[in-house]
Amino acid sequence: MNSFGVLFRISLFGESHGPAIGVIIDGCPPGIAISEEDFLSDLERRQSGAAGTTKRHETDMPEILSGVLNGFTTGSPITILTRNRDKISSDYNEFINIPRPGHADFTAKTKYSGFSDLRGSGHFSGRITWGIVAAGVIAKKICSSSTVTANLTSAGGSTDIQKAIDDAVAFHDSIGGIIECRIINPPTAVGEPFFNSLESVISHLVFSIPAIKGIEFGSGFASAAMKGSVHNDPFINEHGKTSTNNAGGINGGISNGNEIVFRVAVKPTSSTGVEQTTFNFGSGKMDTLKVSGRHDTCIALRMPVIVEAAAAIALADLMLADRGIFGIRK
Amino acid sequence: MNSFGVLFRISLFGESHGPAIGVIIDGCPPGIAISEEDFLSDLERRQSGAAGTTKRHETDMPEILSGVLNGFTTGSPITILTRNRDKISSDYNEFINIPRPGHADFTAKTKYSGFSDLRGSGHFSGRITWGIVAAGVIAKKICSSSTVTANLTSAGGSTDIQKAIDDAVAFHDSIGGIIECRIINPPTAVGEPFFNSLESVISHLVFSIPAIKGIEFGSGFASAAMKGSVHNDPFINEHGKTSTNNAGGINGGISNGNEIVFRVAVKPTSSTGVEQTTFNFGSGKMDTLKVSGRHDTCIALRMPVIVEAAAAIALADLMLADRGIFGIRK
Amino acid sequence: MNSFGVLFRISLFGESHGPAIGVIIDGCPPGIAISEEDFLSDLERRQSGAAGTTKRHETDMPEILSGVLNGFTTGSPITILTRNRDKISSDYNEFINIPRPGHADFTAKTKYSGFSDLRGSGHFSGRITWGIVAAGVIAKKICSSSTVTANLTSAGGSTDIQKAIDDAVAFHDSIGGIIECRIINPPTAVGEPFFNSLESVISHLVFSIPAIKGIEFGSGFASAAMKGSVHNDPFINEHGKTSTNNAGGINGGISNGNEIVFRVAVKPTSSTGVEQTTFNFGSGKMDTLKVSGRHDTCIALRMPVIVEAAAAIALADLMLADRGIFGIRK
Amino acid sequence: MNSFGVLFRISLFGESHGPAIGVIIDGCPPGIAISEEDFLSDLERRQSGAAGTTKRHETDMPEILSGVLNGFTTGSPITILTRNRDKISSDYNEFINIPRPGHADFTAKTKYSGFSDLRGSGHFSGRITWGIVAAGVIAKKICSSSTVTANLTSAGGSTDIQKAIDDAVAFHDSIGGIIECRIINPPTAVGEPFFNSLESVISHLVFSIPAIKGIEFGSGFASAAMKGSVHNDPFINEHGKTSTNNAGGINGGISNGNEIVFRVAVKPTSSTGVEQTTFNFGSGKMDTLKVSGRHDTCIALRMPVIVEAAAAIALADLMLADRGIFGIRK
Repeated sequence: MNSFGVLFRISLFGESHGPAIGVIIDGCPPGIAISEEDFLSDLERRQSGAAGTTKRHETDMPEILSGVLNGFTTGSPITILTRNRDKISSDYNEFINIPRPGHADFTAKTKYSGFSDLRGSGHFSGRITWGIVAAGVIAKKICSSSTVTANLTSAGGSTDIQKAIDDAVAFHDSIGGIIECRIINPPTAVGEPFFNSLESVISHLVFSIPAIKGIEFGSGFASAAMKGSVHNDPFINEHGKTSTNNAGGINGGISNGNEIVFRVAVKPTSSTGVEQTTFNFGSGKMDTLKVSGRHDTCIALRMPVIVEAAAAIALADLMLADRGIFGIRK
Repeated sequence: MNSFGVLFRISLFGESHGPAIGVIIDGCPPGIAISEEDFLSDLERRQSGAAGTTKRHETDMPEILSGVLNGFTTGSPITILTRNRDKISSDYNEFINIPRPGHADFTAKTKYSGFSDLRGSGHFSGRITWGIVAAGVIAKKICSSSTVTANLTSAGGSTDIQKAIDDAVAFHDSIGGIIECRIINPPTAVGEPFFNSLESVISHLVFSIPAIKGIEFGSGFASAAMKGSVHNDPFINEHGKTSTNNAGGINGGISNGNEIVFRVAVKPTSSTGVEQTTFNFGSGKMDTLKVSGRHDTCIALRMPVIVEAAAAIALADLMLADRGIFGIRK
Repeated sequence: MNSFGVLFRISLFGESHGPAIGVIIDGCPPGIAISEEDFLSDLERRQSGAAGTTKRHETDMPEILSGVLNGFTTGSPITILTRNRDKISSDYNEFINIPRPGHADFTAKTKYSGFSDLRGSGHFSGRITWGIVAAGVIAKKICSSSTVTANLTSAGGSTDIQKAIDDAVAFHDSIGGIIECRIINPPTAVGEPFFNSLESVISHLVFSIPAIKGIEFGSGFASAAMKGSVHNDPFINEHGKTSTNNAGGINGGISNGNEIVFRVAVKPTSSTGVEQTTFNFGSGKMDTLKVSGRHDTCIALRMPVIVEAAAAIALADLMLADRGIFGIRK
Repeated sequence: MNSFGVLFRISLFGESHGPAIGVIIDGCPPGIAISEEDFLSDLERRQSGAAGTTKRHETDMPEILSGVLNGFTTGSPITILTRNRDKISSDYNEFINIPRPGHADFTAKTKYSGFSDLRGSGHFSGRITWGIVAAGVIAKKICSSSTVTANLTSAGGSTDIQKAIDDAVAFHDSIGGIIECRIINPPTAVGEPFFNSLESVISHLVFSIPAIKGIEFGSGFASAAMKGSVHNDPFINEHGKTSTNNAGGINGGISNGNEIVFRVAVKPTSSTGVEQTTFNFGSGKMDTLKVSGRHDTCIALRMPVIVEAAAAIALADLMLADRGIFGIRK
């Protein structure tokens, strides 16, 4: 199930070490100005290279194969891909017998009866999120009256993120992090209950991103310990502005016009330089595994732009659905 | 968007104070034994009446209108409804001008241009979850080799749940809670990446339930502060059993055969007996609002069975999809 | 798969001899005036009673269970049902061993492993189209700037329809017919290629209606014998009006603003008073079968309103999708 | 809406004169042997070059970008594309002001507000069906116990197809044709009523193919003139074999195990060498248009393999859905 969306619909494809990865974006309104350069800034944000990110380098230049003519979207499906270049597949042979703890090696092998592409984690690689970021660039243009922004707010449990990463590098270990995403100046009335509540659609997309283990909106888990009289956000003007924003901008699954706020938990990168004791399915005995290859110390560093893209894609699709059913809003 | 699911698909309908609420369940295999009595236990669990729950009483007896013959599912869509009886709609007139903080009054009015049914929160009422619980009873029969169980683990921030509720009642206020759901003995290989990861499908359904503001799988938000060498769950036998379960039974969006574990955060009931200061859209000035009516002190008390149902529905649909694409697994 | 549509989405339920049949209509804009009386005219058109139609009588009064308040749609799912009353189920016991030729008895038994409801053909009864007609009434209101109209143009191969039916009644046999549907003053630009072409969506819905065996748009099958220079419809003004309409108002899967025209072929009612020789799956030998019960001589007589409803539902859904992706058209 | 299917799902992309065209195939079971050579036979059948087909030549070699490893499908989405090479876009500039009768020029310009790619008919080109044929090759492997075969049975109204084409070439005109498709040895019990009847799904896909104006199953339009006692297909053995096959192998929207038979009407190629009088939207007056470029005299010649592919894709998807909901059939 590589597709998501009702009207604005994206379909991902590709494996980490296959010929190419990419995305088709369907249901994009015509007449939106777009060029290959528009993708570079966001694609670079998810790029490896910085301290704490993998040493794998991909130029990742996007090639637009369809749906754009003379610098504008045509209304037909937009296909964007990039070729995989810097791949070292020999790194992965060992994991057939000794699936890496925390990775999808075991579940992929089980689900796909041994036929899945394990090289570079194949279709389970974080690399597949390239297409989400590319689609996100277009989605952001559709919801251009809003600003979607995400940041890493802590890593390894600390807000001193650089230090947390330096420490993890020193121990050859990996760490996770918390990303907070905000949609500033969001449209009102977006979200289609019962099942396509704004939280439902955002969380559906966000949990497709590898390594995410939690999401909360507004006061989130903290709300469980609050009293209603404190948690409720009183309205303070005729536009629906509220004095607090514990709801994260969403009531009844529908945006209320206040900032949409959510946070996601990113687990530590499953590939760690620390030796692990785990089961060898070949020998039938416990064994040790040391994952070499090139990996991120803190994959969360590269993920804010992916989370932004997911939020923008969800918002764009729900905006089109709202316009379809309810017409233009003033 | 009142439908959810790929093969096993449910469609909800109804308003709190309308003639009836219910659900259609499509894609249910034929030959499953079912009677109206089978629903009573779970429906009673979401029923009001206990301390901390609303005083509204509904007998809520399910009527099966289609899809079941001689005590077995036929393979055709199953329709189950119940009539609304104990309703006092005059409670709700005030909220047109003074939308209740935390409720969907404002967003529903905005989205549906003033035509939505505000009585008893209409289609936004927690009462609509009756259909989810009814569908969950059937879903549990489809995934009967597993046990789906959910419990309230804290309320108002305390594990002494009764005391937390008594305190809230004393202050005429409301509180939230944390619910933990476990799928014991789950099937392996369930989940359809990229977009229909097991977490994606569960979270999509769970965030449709009113009042839920967060979800986390396995170690969840705590994982963000962990090291990879600690977080990774080592395999310990040929069935994929792991010594720890930080992943919550899911790798790469696919069940690995270990217990599936997730927790959800339920916000405090938006209706609180405490007087609130909020905007009066009629007068254009700030005003006070005291929500009378009959309401739950802690809506989370009634929600474990709803969360169970959501988990079972997600699991049933993904099991059928897995069987469709990949055939029978041994 | 009892649901159809992208934004304007209908879900059918019920069996011929079960407690009730009905439909949920999702994605209906709020603020549309609707009352139970609005359904009567179209529901009566599909009603039995006229010469050549079954003697089964159902009052078929619609009950609106949700989605309508104070005479207007609310924006929440609309549920409409009617109770089944005049049913004689003993008619159908024989067909378990001797499935009726032309009917779904054999395929239903095979597909649903013997659990399907055979009484009155169960979920395969033409009676289930009641919900399509009810949904069509609402769909017609959504596309109220167009007029959707369908008529029986021939029966049993003759345009003297009454005579054809009288002859068939005399021979205790059944006959088919041709229905032509026109959408007058249709919107331009409706249809979502590649896969949701206007023809694709209409034909998908139309072939859900029992007994339909063919559909053609514009000049249809005759076009296969035409020359391009004759078949092409020249444009004659700036609104896209064409001098001929061989295309049936559709180019490239998109409405061009000219009348949308299609015809459907309805097979003869499978239930015929003539004795048939067919296989007895109980005895393992050929046998004779005489279908008594109450049946239509020419089911096509009752179907124009169903075809209209299908066309209106398709149009309404595509109009909303078009508005969602492309915005309001002038 | 460039995607189709429930479990086995295809997404098309590309324009006639863009960089590439292709298809993503999702939900394909793993372990199916596949190589780029497997596509050549069917792709050549839809290829131009024969008498009566366009002079445009494309090598059309398929490139597999994902989802296949070491000669087997992996279970991840399969992406196949081919680069466009032999394109002469200057042919198409004239059609902005004088949309070609019978083509999508006018509707595409209207729907996509002038941003659509008109070159070579862009996304409306018959060339986009390349992806359907490629997906059909894989679909045929999924339903390999059946044989899907389609043939042109008449052209320009004549069964002497070669003569009909020679005549049309002599007059610089174009002609249509009738294609008959048969699924030999089909599975029983395939089709998901109410809405995903076997006819519904096949017709939905078939009407996505440019130039198709009609479809009929079994005796089709002729059935409208038949008596029920003649039309009904009597069963003659315990496998459900029938002595006649007026139903085209389908009862109640479900395959009954007999050959599935349908016919489609293909209109004459819209591009004809005959001068046409039509509206010039630039000058606001009637004008003459002579379509030069390179075109098919009888596009129906190239379409049997496309119709086969559509039938195989529909069948594959319905087989997987049936297996998902109902389990393995004996």
